[in-house]
Amino acid sequence: MTTNVLPAERALGVHRVLAPAGVLPQAAERLDADPAVGPDEVRIAIQRLNLDAASFRQLSEACGGDGPAVRSAVLDIVRNRGKVQNPVTGSGGMLLGVVDAVGEESPLGLAVGQRVATLVSLTLTPLRITDGLAGWDGRSEQVPAEGTAILFARSIAAVLPGDLPDPVALAVLDVCGAPAATARVVRRSGARSVTVLGAAGKSGCLSLAAARAAGATELTGLVRDDREAAALTAAGLADRVVVADATDPLAVAAAVGTPAEVTVVCVDAPGAEHGAVLATAEGGTVVFFSMATSFAQAALGAEGMAADVTMLIGNGYTPGHAALALDLYRSTPGVRALLDPRVRA
Amino acid sequence: MTTNVLPAERALGVHRVLAPAGVLPQAAERLDADPAVGPDEVRIAIQRLNLDAASFRQLSEACGGDGPAVRSAVLDIVRNRGKVQNPVTGSGGMLLGVVDAVGEESPLGLAVGQRVATLVSLTLTPLRITDGLAGWDGRSEQVPAEGTAILFARSIAAVLPGDLPDPVALAVLDVCGAPAATARVVRRSGARSVTVLGAAGKSGCLSLAAARAAGATELTGLVRDDREAAALTAAGLADRVVVADATDPLAVAAAVGTPAEVTVVCVDAPGAEHGAVLATAEGGTVVFFSMATSFAQAALGAEGMAADVTMLIGNGYTPGHAALALDLYRSTPGVRALLDPRVRA
Repeated sequence: MTTNVLPAERALGVHRVLAPAGVLPQAAERLDADPAVGPDEVRIAIQRLNLDAASFRQLSEACGGDGPAVRSAVLDIVRNRGKVQNPVTGSGGMLLGVVDAVGEESPLGLAVGQRVATLVSLTLTPLRITDGLAGWDGRSEQVPAEGTAILFARSIAAVLPGDLPDPVALAVLDVCGAPAATARVVRRSGARSVTVLGAAGKSGCLSLAAARAAGATELTGLVRDDREAAALTAAGLADRVVVADATDPLAVAAAVGTPAEVTVVCVDAPGAEHGAVLATAEGGTVVFFSMATSFAQAALGAEGMAADVTMLIGNGYTPGHAALALDLYRSTPGVRALLDPRVRA
Repeated sequence: MTTNVLPAERALGVHRVLAPAGVLPQAAERLDADPAVGPDEVRIAIQRLNLDAASFRQLSEACGGDGPAVRSAVLDIVRNRGKVQNPVTGSGGMLLGVVDAVGEESPLGLAVGQRVATLVSLTLTPLRITDGLAGWDGRSEQVPAEGTAILFARSIAAVLPGDLPDPVALAVLDVCGAPAATARVVRRSGARSVTVLGAAGKSGCLSLAAARAAGATELTGLVRDDREAAALTAAGLADRVVVADATDPLAVAAAVGTPAEVTVVCVDAPGAEHGAVLATAEGGTVVFFSMATSFAQAALGAEGMAADVTMLIGNGYTPGHAALALDLYRSTPGVRALLDPRVRA
């Protein structure tokens, strides 16, 4: 274990990095997953791993769909790296478990016995498996597992609410950064008009609800087809529902009409940058939440169109994001109507 | 020529798109470069093309360094596409010329006879070459040329100042988005402490000067080595100069020390995202100006470190950006000291 790290570096878990020296845990080849907790750490008794979809697909294809082979591959990764990080895709996932040890200096506010979901990636979480993943057939992203994981002082974990089924809570927590950031932008800017691209999805419908709660009064939801339009209209989250291909800039601009002060991009496909810029008023703000966003397309597109818009890289972390998203789910029938069918109970 | 386009689409040049139908000029395969100007257009008599460095390198390598072959390749591109857009790199460049026709409804405020540089990319500018590039040996990005280019209502062109040599003006205009955005962020947030990563470069030194002019009082410039540190220190643009590899997050955090309210990333290399996030105070802002920025690295990095920072995609366009940058150059001896040696006069 690396010694003599600064307190700020310890908070990020640098003391758990075995190789290469001097990098952050996410960039590390190998972490120390020793279950003994440091004074600022928390240990979780793992119940379930949710593998990142891209990672599971890659492993499954590489193993020709052979479940036991996929299981062996994941066990090898955890044994070699001390964390769940697919070496090909670079991605990890999240986990569910029970807090079973809390260092006396941990600032996370967790208590032994609480059920939690980690909101930081498994790619930076020291992790050990003790049951050989015996309860998993290797054919699903949902991995029942026993073992331990370590949280650092600057990790994030959400206590699972007692009133919601796990799959619902996880689906909401998975995208909780989007509504929190949307609410903050609307509140700070005083914007009244907000357009959400990809409005019928998980992050999209929560962002509409968050914008409304933050004071926006002219909400437009853009969706891809009539089926989604009917669902979003029935959910009542938007004042106006329009249909267009989000990757066709002129179609987006025509569908949206008068540009909004804030545009939130929740489209899970590349190529939505220019449409989002065109759909936003001069002096307005675009919040990009899609991981398919291209930095260069956004930057060059706005310049090429002489568009005076502020463009934000959606930060998955905003203080209070988990509680806000869960509250929006509980209090908004339209969010439940759109989200529940997407959750495999 | 496409007909029946909406006024907003005309302003973006959609009426000049020949193929494929319904896309923006930058995405078009082929533009109509007819020199007859529409009522909202401006025609430029070209004097010089500045090819994008990546594009010129690709063409030069593909032609084995054969100058006449490179020239033919550029002529072919312009003949086939009606614009300068390298089909391999996708990039273009900018141009210098003289305004020689202004449509009566053009909002750009240009007058016949003014010397201008275009600040929108050549990748979306209809362009015709009439001299066969006879004055160019194909061995430099600087291409003397005769012909015509068309600006749309939403294009951007800067009148070249009479008091500065062309190469200096072009070097300043090339990066003028960075100081303008930095000034705006500092002014709006009331930030006093600002750190610039890559502070000795063109956009970096102008951003330091812009931050100072906007009211920042604690300026830190991070540079890569002692040579740059000496130059930046001598220029007097920063209150503190530190040396670190901007792609090593922990090294950046250690060098910067107390995080700043605003961090501006002008490092022209991939991997500066996590260091920038770590170097920024909670509640602060990171402005990414490097085109090497990875959206995913920034988004996942901030989330993984539970960093409550606002991250901006540097927009190359802010109203008044050209004039601001030229004024900073004129009024700041330290900027001139760093920038002049970089300009081939």
